[in-house]
Amino acid sequence: MTQAREKIEDPFGAFCTDTDAYLQGAADGPLSGLTFAAKDIFDVAGHITGGGNPDWKATHDAAIKTAWAVRVLVEAGATMVGKTITDELTRGIFGENPHYGTPINPRAPGRVPGGSSSGSASAVTGGLVDFALGSDTGGSVRVPASFCGLYGLRPSLGRIPFDGVLVQAPSYDTIGWFARDAETFARVGEVLLQTQIPDAAPLRLVIARDAFEVADQAVVDALWPKVELLAGLIGDSTTERLAPGQLSAWPGQQGVLQSREAWETARDWLDQVNPRLSFEVAQRYLTAAAVTDTEVETARSAKEEVVRRMDEVLSGGAIVCLPTTKTTAPPTGQSASARTALRLRNSALTCIAGTTGGPQINLPMAEVDGLPVGLSLIGPRGSDEMLIGFARRVERDAGH
Amino acid sequence: MTQAREKIEDPFGAFCTDTDAYLQGAADGPLSGLTFAAKDIFDVAGHITGGGNPDWKATHDAAIKTAWAVRVLVEAGATMVGKTITDELTRGIFGENPHYGTPINPRAPGRVPGGSSSGSASAVTGGLVDFALGSDTGGSVRVPASFCGLYGLRPSLGRIPFDGVLVQAPSYDTIGWFARDAETFARVGEVLLQTQIPDAAPLRLVIARDAFEVADQAVVDALWPKVELLAGLIGDSTTERLAPGQLSAWPGQQGVLQSREAWETARDWLDQVNPRLSFEVAQRYLTAAAVTDTEVETARSAKEEVVRRMDEVLSGGAIVCLPTTKTTAPPTGQSASARTALRLRNSALTCIAGTTGGPQINLPMAEVDGLPVGLSLIGPRGSDEMLIGFARRVERDAGH
Repeated sequence: MTQAREKIEDPFGAFCTDTDAYLQGAADGPLSGLTFAAKDIFDVAGHITGGGNPDWKATHDAAIKTAWAVRVLVEAGATMVGKTITDELTRGIFGENPHYGTPINPRAPGRVPGGSSSGSASAVTGGLVDFALGSDTGGSVRVPASFCGLYGLRPSLGRIPFDGVLVQAPSYDTIGWFARDAETFARVGEVLLQTQIPDAAPLRLVIARDAFEVADQAVVDALWPKVELLAGLIGDSTTERLAPGQLSAWPGQQGVLQSREAWETARDWLDQVNPRLSFEVAQRYLTAAAVTDTEVETARSAKEEVVRRMDEVLSGGAIVCLPTTKTTAPPTGQSASARTALRLRNSALTCIAGTTGGPQINLPMAEVDGLPVGLSLIGPRGSDEMLIGFARRVERDAGH
Repeated sequence: MTQAREKIEDPFGAFCTDTDAYLQGAADGPLSGLTFAAKDIFDVAGHITGGGNPDWKATHDAAIKTAWAVRVLVEAGATMVGKTITDELTRGIFGENPHYGTPINPRAPGRVPGGSSSGSASAVTGGLVDFALGSDTGGSVRVPASFCGLYGLRPSLGRIPFDGVLVQAPSYDTIGWFARDAETFARVGEVLLQTQIPDAAPLRLVIARDAFEVADQAVVDALWPKVELLAGLIGDSTTERLAPGQLSAWPGQQGVLQSREAWETARDWLDQVNPRLSFEVAQRYLTAAAVTDTEVETARSAKEEVVRRMDEVLSGGAIVCLPTTKTTAPPTGQSASARTALRLRNSALTCIAGTTGGPQINLPMAEVDGLPVGLSLIGPRGSDEMLIGFARRVERDAGH
């Protein structure tokens, strides 16, 4: 299936330059003629999956099998033209990789692309490919989609097989994708979800008041007309607080549980290889190493509370809308502590779907001072097709 | 002073390949005809000091002035032929640098050279230079001297100006050097200490029973005949325990105090640059970051106790002899946790001179299964010349 490829012009530094993985799409299929890229955590047979870290790459062999998600796309006719840069071991939401560089955000030069699916978002935004595969554990599709102005989905947990993809934290790892328009996004979704995307709409829109309250005022001002547009299209909307207490209390449990899983996944490799990591990523692993069993137990209970509350909010065919990120893309080159603070601040928004295991789609509907910022829709687990179908309908009917 | 140099053949990977720092020695001086290397933490005007970390190098400018120690050696006629590899930011005693590689230990292939002055020890051992500059904060001259079979001194704290040298922890940082023979070692010492090295001997030898008890039995067996030799040369010897309780309780205070200083030295740079570090070194900084003020206070008291006790032991012109390291050089490529355990285990021996601020010299007197292991002499603060002079006398009189 591999054949001679043309070298992609990549003015954005989105692609990995140390692999020539390329898979020609099947001649005849629903995605024929489309090109895509895959984050360098997806296995391609015969190539080493780099994971954004040179010591990961140096200590792993070439993949034997191609990841399920890549395979079905290629069989459906799409051509994989290359692998894209990721935050190291998918640990990051800003997309600054100290080993391989920071892909440019074509919509916001001088600012981060978002991560960890940074190169995939950059390549799609810059028009280098029609769509791209990423992954989302704690926001790694949703955040770059918001910062770059793309459609991007974190699907229901387990909805797309994670076979052949570098694991961070199994209870949170999902495969997502990016596209510039909802039509293409839906075509890809039909292949990845192995289903039809219906022309759909939810029965009710829940506007998450506390999620808007924690976002920057400029972001809220930019998104609000779009919220009203969606409310009008759906016809039935309510404004509700998601959290009984403070929404900022919600992400702590995911922090603990995801950290514990990430540490269990990586600890032996970290110890055996003693790899080079950015100071910030090393700090995240070591913070994870310090998580106690008591903290895990407490977090499990807190997680159940969030799931229960969101079941209530999403009952009766409702979806929730909220800002995808609290801010537009921050400037590159900030200090480790500033970046950590920003990441934790945003986790109040990204933790919701991470915790419920339900889908969240980013609609690239707004800008602040020319910088993209996205509106998100969260549905109940399994409502992936409905969210994508609704996004496509909004694009058709309202030009978004 | 710089002139065209011949490229050094370096089969040991001891030298930095990314700098061509070279300083021709003055035509006429006590060290004329000798060549030396300097660990890549010594400034050489016009060159960036790399510090064993590519992000340190990338975020610093070329040095304006040459370090004092390098300057006096060159003025004394020695030619500096290059810079040598160091553990990153001098944090390590084994000499495995994930960015630039591990210099080969010419006396123990497949085993570490010791660090952090790894390249300097490797280059001298392999005969590439006559002597080399290193630094010793927590063992970084003494350990590689023991593992490579070299003379090596940790001088009295402050005895050699630290100007123009990368700081780790100011209350512990010292400049040391290596040579293959005591004669050359003493010639260099006269320049670095700006004094004459007398033909000297201590009045009494204290054999540190508890220091021998914590070493591997094979190391003790190899060193013991040498201890008896020294006792015979000196004529007066006693066997004593250094620590009133367990010697293994001694290094904790240095661990705390050195860590606190290392964190204060590096924290802003780590945060601003978010550098790539090995997982183990990142872990050491983050452990250091967690040191509390209460721990520092407790450690200060414990340090005073060690200093008081060692003043007592070293009274009346005595010196202490002990194994420099508990083991011979361990194999390369061990896990981060194994290496951390080995480092901590050895700190019971290296902390003594670190804590008193007194000099400690390694005499390359023994082997275990062909692998070097050193005998150390610790003297009171300021007894540097006497230790070196005695080492030279032992070499002359006893062929060691």
